[in-house]
Amino acid sequence: MKSTDTRPELIEPSPASRTSCFKLEVMFGDCDPAGIVFFPNFLKWMDASSHHFFRSCGLPPFRELERSRGIVGHPLLEVRTKFFQPATYGDTLEVYTSVTQWREKVFVHRHEVRRGGDLLCEGEETRTFVMRHPSDPQRMKAIAVPEDIKSLCMAQ
Amino acid sequence: MKSTDTRPELIEPSPASRTSCFKLEVMFGDCDPAGIVFFPNFLKWMDASSHHFFRSCGLPPFRELERSRGIVGHPLLEVRTKFFQPATYGDTLEVYTSVTQWREKVFVHRHEVRRGGDLLCEGEETRTFVMRHPSDPQRMKAIAVPEDIKSLCMAQ
Amino acid sequence: MKSTDTRPELIEPSPASRTSCFKLEVMFGDCDPAGIVFFPNFLKWMDASSHHFFRSCGLPPFRELERSRGIVGHPLLEVRTKFFQPATYGDTLEVYTSVTQWREKVFVHRHEVRRGGDLLCEGEETRTFVMRHPSDPQRMKAIAVPEDIKSLCMAQ
Amino acid sequence: MKSTDTRPELIEPSPASRTSCFKLEVMFGDCDPAGIVFFPNFLKWMDASSHHFFRSCGLPPFRELERSRGIVGHPLLEVRTKFFQPATYGDTLEVYTSVTQWREKVFVHRHEVRRGGDLLCEGEETRTFVMRHPSDPQRMKAIAVPEDIKSLCMAQ
Repeated sequence: MKSTDTRPELIEPSPASRTSCFKLEVMFGDCDPAGIVFFPNFLKWMDASSHHFFRSCGLPPFRELERSRGIVGHPLLEVRTKFFQPATYGDTLEVYTSVTQWREKVFVHRHEVRRGGDLLCEGEETRTFVMRHPSDPQRMKAIAVPEDIKSLCMAQ
Repeated sequence: MKSTDTRPELIEPSPASRTSCFKLEVMFGDCDPAGIVFFPNFLKWMDASSHHFFRSCGLPPFRELERSRGIVGHPLLEVRTKFFQPATYGDTLEVYTSVTQWREKVFVHRHEVRRGGDLLCEGEETRTFVMRHPSDPQRMKAIAVPEDIKSLCMAQ
Repeated sequence: MKSTDTRPELIEPSPASRTSCFKLEVMFGDCDPAGIVFFPNFLKWMDASSHHFFRSCGLPPFRELERSRGIVGHPLLEVRTKFFQPATYGDTLEVYTSVTQWREKVFVHRHEVRRGGDLLCEGEETRTFVMRHPSDPQRMKAIAVPEDIKSLCMAQ
Repeated sequence: MKSTDTRPELIEPSPASRTSCFKLEVMFGDCDPAGIVFFPNFLKWMDASSHHFFRSCGLPPFRELERSRGIVGHPLLEVRTKFFQPATYGDTLEVYTSVTQWREKVFVHRHEVRRGGDLLCEGEETRTFVMRHPSDPQRMKAIAVPEDIKSLCMAQ
């Protein structure tokens, strides 16, 4: 992204992204005193779906990526979420996940949480891959998105 | 249970109980800094499996049971759990659930959490069905286990 | 806000809002395999801080508001969150919460999660007060923000 | 404990154990559709109180113990919990934690969760300190309870 880019907010879907589907059943303990899913759980499921996305693209889990390449994780920098309809225990949900933008050091996920045909919630996450800081292993350091990871995430 | 019962601790499996199987995938957010499932999640999954057990026996969810029969839930009185092996994110687990004992007002669940052939964790829960207290709807009151519910839970 | 307002996205802080401070200690079980707070917990704490905000302004808890006025809760419509620094178990955090905008049927919370002088995370939540739908108590219905609640939330 | 000990199940309180008190406020998101604390959260709080116990006895957090002495954590082998009274959001709870037994490789915690004068829940946890297995760092290995840790936990 050049510094002359004047549309920093505009997210154009990356046409070539794969889309994964992560399925789950809402548990009693996911729900709050109003009887509906406690909203932070939707963000937990988007996170699980992000891990599932990279696994379904062919990437190993992060505990192996750390050993083989030093990539510790892909922490969240920013998230926006909109809630349209509630869900409750016993419901089966699907989270559809893709990548809508690759920048130099960050990428943007789009997640849609659906129950059958209904869109319950959508989210947009900005994340970065990180390694341990060479001089202080307690600190993390964002890296450029590895080209091979980007390629794996493209639809064939 | 008569007061002369001298074997209060002995749990004999109820030979006629159905056994249900609740399947789940461990999420990244279920794991702790040691990289393994944070143990209270095993208890959350046993609880979800208890709800799943009653649903698979033909009972409606509690939000409907409350409307139709005033039965609000089946709170836990006591739980014992043993942990044999850890699990981590990406693992697929099955929780096998049955009823090992029906007493007048309480019943005992047995749960086994397995990953393929491996037993990871087992738990024994003592629960009771409750209704709202007639003079104070904020308080709950244990009821005798309804005979029709007991029958639904028996293997045919 | 007049109907001719052409800047619906612009959030101007409500100068008169009270600000509350909700304090918590990060638990081991709040942290993920990277050893840092699993991010949906920040949203759980913002939610707890919203409840704490209204309580500290003089409102009773929602379980009493439902009985006295039929107001069941204040569900989330939208949330945006930015993460600046991680936290880990043993850390003491403060969540500072205020209202930055009152519209007819929705209001906007601003939350800042701090550890001492450091801003770890900030969030903006759009919420609405709801009652049960008169013809279907399972559905919720947004109501106009009650004037007395708005007044309670103003700094004296 | 000698191998001729014939009372392996009998837990005698260790008279010399310190007792710590961990305080917390129940959040909305800790509660379930019945409006009360979802029970696995009591186990999360007992776990947090165990960490707090060792910190208050003078032990550093496990992330430092791993670096300095290779002790990765103190995983749970077994837990028994009894529930006497429910709690709800807004309640302030205290978890009182001590060690009731030190064996060679395991120790037993006693936890009491109280709200003012009321005992809500009690638990007994059997735990062990672990290091990474020398030939496979992914596996954990129980170690003898370090004498200096035991000493720190004794009341002066």
